[in-house]
Amino acid sequence: MNALNIAEHMHSLGLQAREASARMAAASAAEKSAALRGLAALLRANVASLRQDNAKDIERATAAGLAAPMVDRLKLTPKIIETLAVGCEQLATMPDIIGEILGMKQQPTGIRVGQMRVPLGVFGMIFESRPNVTIEAASLSIKSGNACILRGGSEAIESNKALARLVQQALVDAGLPAEAVQLVQTTDREAVGYLIAMPEYVDVIIPRGGKSLIERISREAKVPVIKHLDGNCHTYVDDPCDIEMAVKVADNAKTNKYSPCNASEGLLVARGVAKDFLPRIGKVFADKGVEMRCDPEARSILQVVPGADLKDATEQDWSEEYLAPIISVKVVAGVDEAIAHINRYSSHHTDAILTRDHVHAQRFLREVDSASVMVNASTRFADGFEYGLGAEIGISTDKFHARGPVGLEGLTSLKWIVLGNGEVRS
Amino acid sequence: MNALNIAEHMHSLGLQAREASARMAAASAAEKSAALRGLAALLRANVASLRQDNAKDIERATAAGLAAPMVDRLKLTPKIIETLAVGCEQLATMPDIIGEILGMKQQPTGIRVGQMRVPLGVFGMIFESRPNVTIEAASLSIKSGNACILRGGSEAIESNKALARLVQQALVDAGLPAEAVQLVQTTDREAVGYLIAMPEYVDVIIPRGGKSLIERISREAKVPVIKHLDGNCHTYVDDPCDIEMAVKVADNAKTNKYSPCNASEGLLVARGVAKDFLPRIGKVFADKGVEMRCDPEARSILQVVPGADLKDATEQDWSEEYLAPIISVKVVAGVDEAIAHINRYSSHHTDAILTRDHVHAQRFLREVDSASVMVNASTRFADGFEYGLGAEIGISTDKFHARGPVGLEGLTSLKWIVLGNGEVRS
Repeated sequence: MNALNIAEHMHSLGLQAREASARMAAASAAEKSAALRGLAALLRANVASLRQDNAKDIERATAAGLAAPMVDRLKLTPKIIETLAVGCEQLATMPDIIGEILGMKQQPTGIRVGQMRVPLGVFGMIFESRPNVTIEAASLSIKSGNACILRGGSEAIESNKALARLVQQALVDAGLPAEAVQLVQTTDREAVGYLIAMPEYVDVIIPRGGKSLIERISREAKVPVIKHLDGNCHTYVDDPCDIEMAVKVADNAKTNKYSPCNASEGLLVARGVAKDFLPRIGKVFADKGVEMRCDPEARSILQVVPGADLKDATEQDWSEEYLAPIISVKVVAGVDEAIAHINRYSSHHTDAILTRDHVHAQRFLREVDSASVMVNASTRFADGFEYGLGAEIGISTDKFHARGPVGLEGLTSLKWIVLGNGEVRS
Repeated sequence: MNALNIAEHMHSLGLQAREASARMAAASAAEKSAALRGLAALLRANVASLRQDNAKDIERATAAGLAAPMVDRLKLTPKIIETLAVGCEQLATMPDIIGEILGMKQQPTGIRVGQMRVPLGVFGMIFESRPNVTIEAASLSIKSGNACILRGGSEAIESNKALARLVQQALVDAGLPAEAVQLVQTTDREAVGYLIAMPEYVDVIIPRGGKSLIERISREAKVPVIKHLDGNCHTYVDDPCDIEMAVKVADNAKTNKYSPCNASEGLLVARGVAKDFLPRIGKVFADKGVEMRCDPEARSILQVVPGADLKDATEQDWSEEYLAPIISVKVVAGVDEAIAHINRYSSHHTDAILTRDHVHAQRFLREVDSASVMVNASTRFADGFEYGLGAEIGISTDKFHARGPVGLEGLTSLKWIVLGNGEVRS
């Protein structure tokens, strides 16, 4: 498309999404469930043709010399398609939160005042490579009564188009407008610039991808962005604490998986338990090949551990999101220094205290300024499904609107409703 | 101040606010109440000196030829000062919402997950003329555990400085940091540009003032803005409805006061009741000197009213916020056309249906996309105090974060808290 056509295309997507959003907001739970169940059936019935379209993306990516792991992320296998279908069915069975009424209270004037949950309207989702996000975003959008405009990675364009066609068919079969879920049809980067700057048509942008993508979008967007930047999470081992439990939880927080944003990247240890705790966790990390970047005090204690991979931490290490078998380690005086260190260096994603002390636990919960704050649990639990949200749109590192794991509620707003009997204001 | 000094001043206010915000977030309810009660006492003890400082602003404004109503808005009378003191005391007695824990639920893994209400951090408030906003904003900021940076109108700079000194003294007397409430010390417009573009120090901006100020700030801000644009509110008289009640409520919605944003600017009437209802409300409006800008059908019915001030409505009238004794009047087929008209022309502030029909009431509540939607009540009720919020930061016409009348909760965020017993993720 040329520049003029891109502008027209985006404008038309926006206008149609806005129109469709009114119908979606009024859709019944039954209609939305029918669309989701229909989509599940269509996915299962079209495995072969989806794989054909997907093969075009795979071929093009391979020919372009894309690295094997990147090509892998593009693949729509029968197993992945089945998982997507099951996800749609699960969403269909979840309660519909749209129209929910909260806190209705009678006021002295006689009016009753409360809040009703309604969709935000239209959201734009910008994502990279994995085509399954097309179905995940579309199904969340349908369930939450919004309309959405999806902009996937250029490598997956054929797969995304094929998936989006199925979504639109499912919508129409359920008596809902096809334009409730639209895919940007061009891979031109300029389209993103339009998508994030149409406040008249798009209410919120949700980017999923690398930090640089999200930073660029946040900087340039003219509408709110539900953004997930980095996860520099900490586990603080307090004095007093159950050392056995602390070793188990700190190990899990770091080594359960290295790549997720909720893995711990920093380990803080109270001086009072450092000589007891550090050699034990040091042995676990040494056995698993985890490099420890230490302050001098931690390093001198950890030197007793045979085979430990110890380095001196630099100032930069305290802010680092490694997403790798590396952890920074620091001895602190106690809970005050731990809270201060975390509030200074954490990315405000998820931080945990492991403690027996009730007052320390309460202070940590209240004073650590992060989206998720935990006592005696692994930071790896910071996740919409583990929190019982039933779905996850993303994890927000912002404080405004939605914070931490964002479920369907993050795509809704509360409007005030007033029920009267002819009351007037004096 | 020169440009360099302004930049330095704003940077230093930001840094100090951010530091103070951590202490405020951890402050106990007793400390915050002590500061608020202390502020009330200081206001009462300093009426004379406040009036001296205020007199400087009044003199300068008068000498500069400011219009009398504008000069009036600057005045700090003993009565206004007493009202401010009472307001601080009322806030002190309200429950503290910071630290409140919501929805704590046990998950299958054993962890308990819920949300804790915490302050947003630092807000910036930009306002015009009236110096009492300095105290209103400062007291709301203290109560909600935030820090704030206040930028008042240049006409009230001496009054604002005097008031801000009392606030800081009250904070210090209560053992809290003076920097929790800071006033921008220069009247240079450039300072606003810095205030709205320091995401590292300021979490949200709340502008209070004319539409052009708010539009400028929304356009240029690098942080979220809780914005209140215009209030083009509607009252829709449905078929069937209690005509007696409809006349009383429609009258109140328009004529109770003309200047507030929640006054109705548009009257929609279902065709089935138009001949019965319109002449009666027309007589009320004629008696009160309210001009009616009508579509042809409404005009032809209203012509029977002696002395009615009737004009033909133009397309522009449907979008107009008059804030004056003028109302647009239109006959519609029924609830569908009313909802469509409102969703097209309303400013999404407050809209009401007057009806006996349950299905119409439910549809109006659900489908009208406004911050407040009412059944059988005057739009004039859209107000934080009438809604029982106990305080009002402003009224948001946005959907993101806070919508409609915003109480103290609008200055808070919910973070996730997880309580475990050493659980790890498998």
